[in-house]
Amino acid sequence: MKLENCNDVSPPQDTHSNADAADEIFVPPLNFAMVDNGIFRSGFPDSANFRFLKSLRLRSVICLCPEPYPDSTSEFLKANGIRLYQFGIDGCKEPFVNIPNDTIREALKVALDVKNHPLLIHCKRGKHRTGCLVGCIRRLQRWCLSSVFDEYQRFAGAKARVSDQRFIELFDISGLKHHPLSFSCSRK
Amino acid sequence: MKLENCNDVSPPQDTHSNADAADEIFVPPLNFAMVDNGIFRSGFPDSANFRFLKSLRLRSVICLCPEPYPDSTSEFLKANGIRLYQFGIDGCKEPFVNIPNDTIREALKVALDVKNHPLLIHCKRGKHRTGCLVGCIRRLQRWCLSSVFDEYQRFAGAKARVSDQRFIELFDISGLKHHPLSFSCSRK
Repeated sequence: MKLENCNDVSPPQDTHSNADAADEIFVPPLNFAMVDNGIFRSGFPDSANFRFLKSLRLRSVICLCPEPYPDSTSEFLKANGIRLYQFGIDGCKEPFVNIPNDTIREALKVALDVKNHPLLIHCKRGKHRTGCLVGCIRRLQRWCLSSVFDEYQRFAGAKARVSDQRFIELFDISGLKHHPLSFSCSRK
Repeated sequence: MKLENCNDVSPPQDTHSNADAADEIFVPPLNFAMVDNGIFRSGFPDSANFRFLKSLRLRSVICLCPEPYPDSTSEFLKANGIRLYQFGIDGCKEPFVNIPNDTIREALKVALDVKNHPLLIHCKRGKHRTGCLVGCIRRLQRWCLSSVFDEYQRFAGAKARVSDQRFIELFDISGLKHHPLSFSCSRK
């Protein structure tokens, strides 16, 4: 509540030094992590995550689920000027897994374009579809496969799929190699 | 091999478009991940990781192990102008866990100082000591505890310790709150 005519002359509170403000707690989406400079990953965001997501100052979101967003999420994106790129991939279960090559390729182009950063990649749980897309990013970064799979498994846990890891391994990156992408941070 | 007087007039090869160069593969250290802008985490780096670490253009390393580095690692840091901050914490096993409060506090100050970025935090496996320090960073970022623990567990896996998570929960962040730290990336 803002008190316009308050007699309290204390300076404006720095919200980062107010330990009592319960509304200061940030709730990242399920399986949230930073992939690289300007690229984040997670499961499906809900309204509890909006304050946190706002702090990322996202410019765009890649949604790998086919379902439309709830109204509250669409409104959040609109209110914050965040562009949605939806690449609907069915979240099918093994052995009926079919990660579509062309869809991942189009999503990759969006993810690699720094004009879209900061960007959040998400699916439902942040494990399989997101894990496949991030795995392809790591291949472009020329990570060894054991490290790519280790990262995939860290997020997928007991739900890790050999079929996803095979998809990542066999994905043809030859047409995408001109995209610069690295962890290198400029020394300040 | 560099051919000084070669008649081949083809332009200099872009190493990122040479699919055959086996030496182009990067090997991140065990449990490697990006924590936030300019902060990385991992297990103990070895010589196989040097090319990858070089690509991060690190300015400093926080080592949470008490043991001295092998000569090759010390030489790598020296050759690349990387400053080492060693905060030796014994990698003890439950129930004899004793994460020292003051040591973590000093390590935090180094980690939060952007003058030290890009920075790598590591211990032996990148699970417990590193997980405690990163957990304290998340508390400073005001993440809810369930998300802090979820991240800790993602890296610790079956080796997750309640005692580490209790340490993170009870760690007093009140004296460190003036440090700015967030995921926010400037929109380019």
